[in-house]
Amino acid sequence: MGIQDYLKSGNERLDKQLLFTAEIDRMTGVLRQTLLIDKSRRENDAEHSWHIAVMAMLFREYAKEPVDIGRVVQMCVVHDLIEREADDTFAYDEKANLDKEERERKAADILFSKLPEEQGKMIRSLWEEFDAMQTPDAKYAACMDRLQPFLHNTLTGGHTWFNGRVKKPMVEKRMAVIREFMPEVYKWIEANIERGIERGWLAP
Amino acid sequence: MGIQDYLKSGNERLDKQLLFTAEIDRMTGVLRQTLLIDKSRRENDAEHSWHIAVMAMLFREYAKEPVDIGRVVQMCVVHDLIEREADDTFAYDEKANLDKEERERKAADILFSKLPEEQGKMIRSLWEEFDAMQTPDAKYAACMDRLQPFLHNTLTGGHTWFNGRVKKPMVEKRMAVIREFMPEVYKWIEANIERGIERGWLAP
Repeated sequence: MGIQDYLKSGNERLDKQLLFTAEIDRMTGVLRQTLLIDKSRRENDAEHSWHIAVMAMLFREYAKEPVDIGRVVQMCVVHDLIEREADDTFAYDEKANLDKEERERKAADILFSKLPEEQGKMIRSLWEEFDAMQTPDAKYAACMDRLQPFLHNTLTGGHTWFNGRVKKPMVEKRMAVIREFMPEVYKWIEANIERGIERGWLAP
Repeated sequence: MGIQDYLKSGNERLDKQLLFTAEIDRMTGVLRQTLLIDKSRRENDAEHSWHIAVMAMLFREYAKEPVDIGRVVQMCVVHDLIEREADDTFAYDEKANLDKEERERKAADILFSKLPEEQGKMIRSLWEEFDAMQTPDAKYAACMDRLQPFLHNTLTGGHTWFNGRVKKPMVEKRMAVIREFMPEVYKWIEANIERGIERGWLAP
């Protein structure tokens, strides 16, 4: 029997929602470059999404503009869903990032069509808002999405930077949204970029 | 160097928040009895918390009373945090559940004291609300917390039930909040309890 045979509830909408729920469990197998803080293994998308959602509840006081935490947390838990189809693109892989947008748009078409239409649209629009980084909520969510792997890198011997031969300007570019939207937190980022260079984790 | 040496930002509140963020990463190592749907391994608390948070965005139409999804999603991502200290208690282990409350209360005292006071209180009160299952938001979050492992069990050959020698009345008790708060979803639960018995996954 296939998954769908277990999901026949007699209500077609509910079937779709249950199937979508089952399918996104695959996010637990989409691996990121980041290590867990205990260095035991690479982190997966489900773990990362959960982690930044909790963080969003903690760091709002540093945001330059008011944000709606309830919306941001929703944005955080769905912001990587399309990687179920498109896989994770390493933030510092310049080549892979060239066609990222196109790959992710196609992935979104596939993924969100699996839901009842208005729910697919609702989640897709949250993801698009996140990706565009124009609203305060999206900027704040993006800050969490950058701060979390930065923290992991700092606590795991610069693992991702070192293995990816990452240079300081690349990290600065990635962290620019924190510099703009959370200047107090950026001071800590800045100090640790310098320390990363001193330790040879990060190229100047 | 210890973790704390990397977290000296010059702002004591920020240090606490960063350290808390680093410490809760251990949720990725708190294993549940539930298998991932692809059966590759046991699920961890971070993955489970993320999964039910996304689900909360999908199933509100079946809730008997209006719920605030932004609050519920926050509740979902923090509802198991105290297991960082207290570990996961298998829902169907009657003995371990006898002292669960006391163990979890102590764990909460330790965990939430790591945060700036008002943030610790805020997250603790969300967790307590979840645990008490009295408000519509808490009932709905609890439904997600029950529906998700039920779905996983249904799709992994009844893994947890079979290994835990679980009986039908125990599952019915655990799913009671869904019967009360999401009767339409409970029809699907009920049908799959019967199928679980037919297949020998679940004792009558």
